[in-house]
Amino acid sequence: MAAVSGSGRDARSSEGILVLASASPQRRAILEQLGVDFTVRAADVEERRGGDPERLVVDNALLKARAVPGSRVLGADTAVAVDGDVLGKPAAEAEARAFLERLSGREHVVWSGIALTEEGTQQTAVASARVRFRDLDRRDVDWYLSTGEWRDRAGGYAIQGRGGALVEAIQGDYNCVVGLPVAALVRLAPYLIVHSP
Amino acid sequence: MAAVSGSGRDARSSEGILVLASASPQRRAILEQLGVDFTVRAADVEERRGGDPERLVVDNALLKARAVPGSRVLGADTAVAVDGDVLGKPAAEAEARAFLERLSGREHVVWSGIALTEEGTQQTAVASARVRFRDLDRRDVDWYLSTGEWRDRAGGYAIQGRGGALVEAIQGDYNCVVGLPVAALVRLAPYLIVHSP
Repeated sequence: MAAVSGSGRDARSSEGILVLASASPQRRAILEQLGVDFTVRAADVEERRGGDPERLVVDNALLKARAVPGSRVLGADTAVAVDGDVLGKPAAEAEARAFLERLSGREHVVWSGIALTEEGTQQTAVASARVRFRDLDRRDVDWYLSTGEWRDRAGGYAIQGRGGALVEAIQGDYNCVVGLPVAALVRLAPYLIVHSP
Repeated sequence: MAAVSGSGRDARSSEGILVLASASPQRRAILEQLGVDFTVRAADVEERRGGDPERLVVDNALLKARAVPGSRVLGADTAVAVDGDVLGKPAAEAEARAFLERLSGREHVVWSGIALTEEGTQQTAVASARVRFRDLDRRDVDWYLSTGEWRDRAGGYAIQGRGGALVEAIQGDYNCVVGLPVAALVRLAPYLIVHSP
């Protein structure tokens, strides 16, 4: 477990309104965008893989939230699903290429789960969004692989980075695709964002 | 016309692969996200207002692209449309409140047009995306207005900022809502992004 400050917060000061149990820079960026006063404590857990993506992301979000101390902890997990398969983080460039070729010219589904633990209580929520890739030719895939951005990304792409150039359209919550389902989080805990002082 | 460097580029050096004829920081952020090597030269033009939004954003994008010198210039414009009305930038907080109350709990359409001028030729493209706001109560609107983010934003909100907490879901190109229709730009000029060296 690593403690990192978010929103310019000093890690040694109080933990803010929320502890984010994730090392993901994109999740941190979303909370910063929303103006949430939070601290990052990345959870070091053995994540579950495979199985039903809707259940998987909630289970993993909960694993992460429970693994980290704090008075209010948010865990999150994201999975890319296509034809009943869950695409994890590619192990190597060849697997990233296979993922991108599989996602080309069609729609897939991104699932994101969140879990919020607070004083012995826990709440979870899950969201999905459809993402349509444009038809990718060999040059597109070569270019994207050359950016290196596929590394450590579920499904082998990052919509909020160069990967934005692969996407034709989405249907649902954009932040769910990035890694944190904001609309679901606002429903679960509006006081974190909208009604915070 | 103001010259500002993008992507860490020195404004006095060559202008990169592209001149962006817009002062919008969100458009600049999108091009940076995509790794485009560009320079910003904000166009100082009298934009058209009202009328058919699809035509309006293309006309304004072209006005901007033509107003700025450069060997390859990109203009862009964005409009928020609801019930046949185009919502511009709110003149004051009271108008921003009226916009948010009007957009609450329903879908509206965001149109973004682009124009690319190069050696006497010009190409244009337009895209639209549907944005669904959740039901906003008085506290939600008060909170959002208090962030000040409504200023200088078509429709009175910024989806890539605190305004992300107002949005339930979108249908289409997220970047079109932010202000630059990336999927359309990639179709128009793939060499700018995907196939750039």
